[in-house]
Amino acid sequence: MLGTGTVGRTLAGKLVELGHEVRMGSRQAGNEVALEWVQSAGERASEGTFADAAEHGELVVNATAGAASLEALGAAGADNLAGKVLIDVSNALDFSGGPPPVVGVSIDDSLGERIQAAFPDARVVKALNTLNASLMVAPDSLEESTNVFICGDDAGAKAQVTELLETFGWLSGDIVDLGDISAARGAELYVALWVLLMGALGTPQFNIRVVRGS
Amino acid sequence: MLGTGTVGRTLAGKLVELGHEVRMGSRQAGNEVALEWVQSAGERASEGTFADAAEHGELVVNATAGAASLEALGAAGADNLAGKVLIDVSNALDFSGGPPPVVGVSIDDSLGERIQAAFPDARVVKALNTLNASLMVAPDSLEESTNVFICGDDAGAKAQVTELLETFGWLSGDIVDLGDISAARGAELYVALWVLLMGALGTPQFNIRVVRGS
Repeated sequence: MLGTGTVGRTLAGKLVELGHEVRMGSRQAGNEVALEWVQSAGERASEGTFADAAEHGELVVNATAGAASLEALGAAGADNLAGKVLIDVSNALDFSGGPPPVVGVSIDDSLGERIQAAFPDARVVKALNTLNASLMVAPDSLEESTNVFICGDDAGAKAQVTELLETFGWLSGDIVDLGDISAARGAELYVALWVLLMGALGTPQFNIRVVRGS
Repeated sequence: MLGTGTVGRTLAGKLVELGHEVRMGSRQAGNEVALEWVQSAGERASEGTFADAAEHGELVVNATAGAASLEALGAAGADNLAGKVLIDVSNALDFSGGPPPVVGVSIDDSLGERIQAAFPDARVVKALNTLNASLMVAPDSLEESTNVFICGDDAGAKAQVTELLETFGWLSGDIVDLGDISAARGAELYVALWVLLMGALGTPQFNIRVVRGS
């Protein structure tokens, strides 16, 4: 697990709960938040540098802030990512102009694509960036089933991520494969609407459900 | 009604059905598609130039292609738009790189904002750009109720558009006010996800429903 923020801690906690051994990585080993998480999460939890975490994982999750993701993954090390499924949960959110943030990297690019291009041997799957951390691991806390989106160039990696998402409580029919990694644009740009919906609803505890015609 | 495409014809048809007098505008009076529409729609339908249509309407709808909207509205004439509610349904879709199109004008701007800035005396409300034309005027054709989004700087204009949408079949509780016209970014950038969902589902006959936590 790369990143010690709310998303990283929430996903790491769920993974430990599911029986996985999780190493949380940050810039420096001994990060206070990471140490606190290890203490609360128990014996299957450990922490270290980004490289420690990436080396440890069979599967790596990028839960760092979008603006820091490429640097964090560089510190994790291309060798430690090669051949592995890399779930990219990141979002580019620029709050410099005040809320709401400017969302995304551009209309014709995405963090998912940039990460796949920078680490061609990693098997990048964009997933879970379209909803609040607590809902990522507890989709059944909403009144109705909703959708989550995945995309990536590697079909096997997407199948693995689908299985993992099912262990989080997502129904396989609600996990929508949007296509190759360029589809990360759609998943990332949607967050511009998500931010406004959060403001309109007054809560981040919501998600969308795709309703089809009969 | 500015524009003779599927969106323009569908909205114009519904408005005539609801008893409104509708003038469809295009670059030149006598446009073949517009004439055909007038013939099929009956006595409350007429056609003319963009300026004819804008002058005629108490309320103006921009249903032109996003890339052509500012020019079309310029032809419609700032004087003919001044003080009027202008519903902007447009999307910027760039197919030059092949499908899927690049969506939006940029991550920190939108057609809605550009139109409001270019025509400061018009009361621009972004609406209905997030779904297929046939669903805009028949939301009950989906299996469940779904959401539509409005935004704009003028509260009175948004209230008028909300009433109009209700006559199309939208439930008032399903019409989400995203805020001022800068929220058009969220509504327009969402279309990047919509295009991918259309590909994944194999149909444009779908919409999203926002599901809240209990």
